[in-house]
Amino acid sequence: MTEEIAPGLADKVRRSFARQSLMRTFRAEITGLGRGRCEISAPIVPEARQQHDAGHAGLTFALGDSAAGYAALTMLPQEAEVMTAEMKINLLAPARGERLVARGRVVKAGRRLVVVTAEVEAVSGDERRPVAILQGTMVPV
Amino acid sequence: MTEEIAPGLADKVRRSFARQSLMRTFRAEITGLGRGRCEISAPIVPEARQQHDAGHAGLTFALGDSAAGYAALTMLPQEAEVMTAEMKINLLAPARGERLVARGRVVKAGRRLVVVTAEVEAVSGDERRPVAILQGTMVPV
Amino acid sequence: MTEEIAPGLADKVRRSFARQSLMRTFRAEITGLGRGRCEISAPIVPEARQQHDAGHAGLTFALGDSAAGYAALTMLPQEAEVMTAEMKINLLAPARGERLVARGRVVKAGRRLVVVTAEVEAVSGDERRPVAILQGTMVPV
Amino acid sequence: MTEEIAPGLADKVRRSFARQSLMRTFRAEITGLGRGRCEISAPIVPEARQQHDAGHAGLTFALGDSAAGYAALTMLPQEAEVMTAEMKINLLAPARGERLVARGRVVKAGRRLVVVTAEVEAVSGDERRPVAILQGTMVPV
Repeated sequence: MTEEIAPGLADKVRRSFARQSLMRTFRAEITGLGRGRCEISAPIVPEARQQHDAGHAGLTFALGDSAAGYAALTMLPQEAEVMTAEMKINLLAPARGERLVARGRVVKAGRRLVVVTAEVEAVSGDERRPVAILQGTMVPV
Repeated sequence: MTEEIAPGLADKVRRSFARQSLMRTFRAEITGLGRGRCEISAPIVPEARQQHDAGHAGLTFALGDSAAGYAALTMLPQEAEVMTAEMKINLLAPARGERLVARGRVVKAGRRLVVVTAEVEAVSGDERRPVAILQGTMVPV
Repeated sequence: MTEEIAPGLADKVRRSFARQSLMRTFRAEITGLGRGRCEISAPIVPEARQQHDAGHAGLTFALGDSAAGYAALTMLPQEAEVMTAEMKINLLAPARGERLVARGRVVKAGRRLVVVTAEVEAVSGDERRPVAILQGTMVPV
Repeated sequence: MTEEIAPGLADKVRRSFARQSLMRTFRAEITGLGRGRCEISAPIVPEARQQHDAGHAGLTFALGDSAAGYAALTMLPQEAEVMTAEMKINLLAPARGERLVARGRVVKAGRRLVVVTAEVEAVSGDERRPVAILQGTMVPV
């Protein structure tokens, strides 16, 4: 994914991301950014597990939601911010592996609502396994 | 909320909850448990914030989802476990305050699917403000 | 449910409802209206069935969505209209019985988004059985 | 979309579809069928409109949900049937045009749950406009 968005906008996304303490707690990084697209990767840290030691649904959700939110932010004017209005997640498999990769995508950027999707995969070496899909709405604020 | 469920079942819920490292990271506690009901409370820890220092949507989701999941577990046979199949959250207000309180509730406990809802409030002293509602499906495993 | 809303607003809701040809096709009626609340009832007409002769999920959805939408409309200024931005339905049981009753309710009426829920029941004589719950977002237009 | 599924399975899908009176009411047809995929097309009939004469959200939902359900059915054993457990729709634009085309797709076919998505477009001559996206769960019965 090439960084085809304006450098100022990419900086804004990265500054906002850096201020999210939850993303630091999850050791998450932005690993891809383009117009209407954002990819976030994170290891499945020991601090974010469920009772069987897989990643908690809250971890998968947080990564997918953030990827979708920052994808939305790339489509908005420089001064805008974005908030999740609603988000739905379908879990496909337990979150096990070396790390999770969440890819957010803008489906429709309206003036008042931005409809987004995201997918989350578990990656181990060359293997990729789908973990979740998300569909939701971001609102510019 | 009185603990009207069998002591063995309450123990099972609390043991499972204690094994979720994400709930420890969020300093969450089970503060209520009954048949088809579970309440989880947590401070809005500094490690779980979004870019404006409110609680991250991932925190609100994780608490609501866990409250709903353990509510479902109280309706199932002693040997069963439960997993989130899908969950939808509508965010009503930023998660600001002393702590978040999530209340999960079973709407319908089928043999193969358990339909659940949850609400999350922000509490500060005597003030309570709705932060989110959730609706989803748990599957016994 | 008493009609505690202004007569002009109740008229507006009923006029809008009367213009929805799908509601006529389903022989649906508004059977309750209050501030932030709307109830719609309809028989399970032969024209709206699925392959096993129960009401189609599209019928249940349409009644629940409309009840939620008109509940939202009662909270808005006289000149506003409302559109569904997104809606999620969990189906609890097949739609069988004499008629369906959908009750929509406003959870939060914001300036830009109105969060709503609805429940749909199947009614036969004195018996009432939950058929579906819905959770979604209406936008004033 | 080639009909790459067994003829017996295609027949089963078409027979089930033919028994859905709501699909007849909407003059809907199956216009594509493959393994894990189903396309349904329908005019925006005068009987299925909302108050501004666009197609009702209930029409868009019913077409998307049915396309997703029959997509799921193509992945199941010959004797199985399928029911919608839950479905979420985000509406992108009013349903205006000559007809609606809904494309359902299986994301993951598990033994107990089939996760599906669908998209609905409005078509007028050569023009295609996205109207809605759906994400949900079908259960084999």
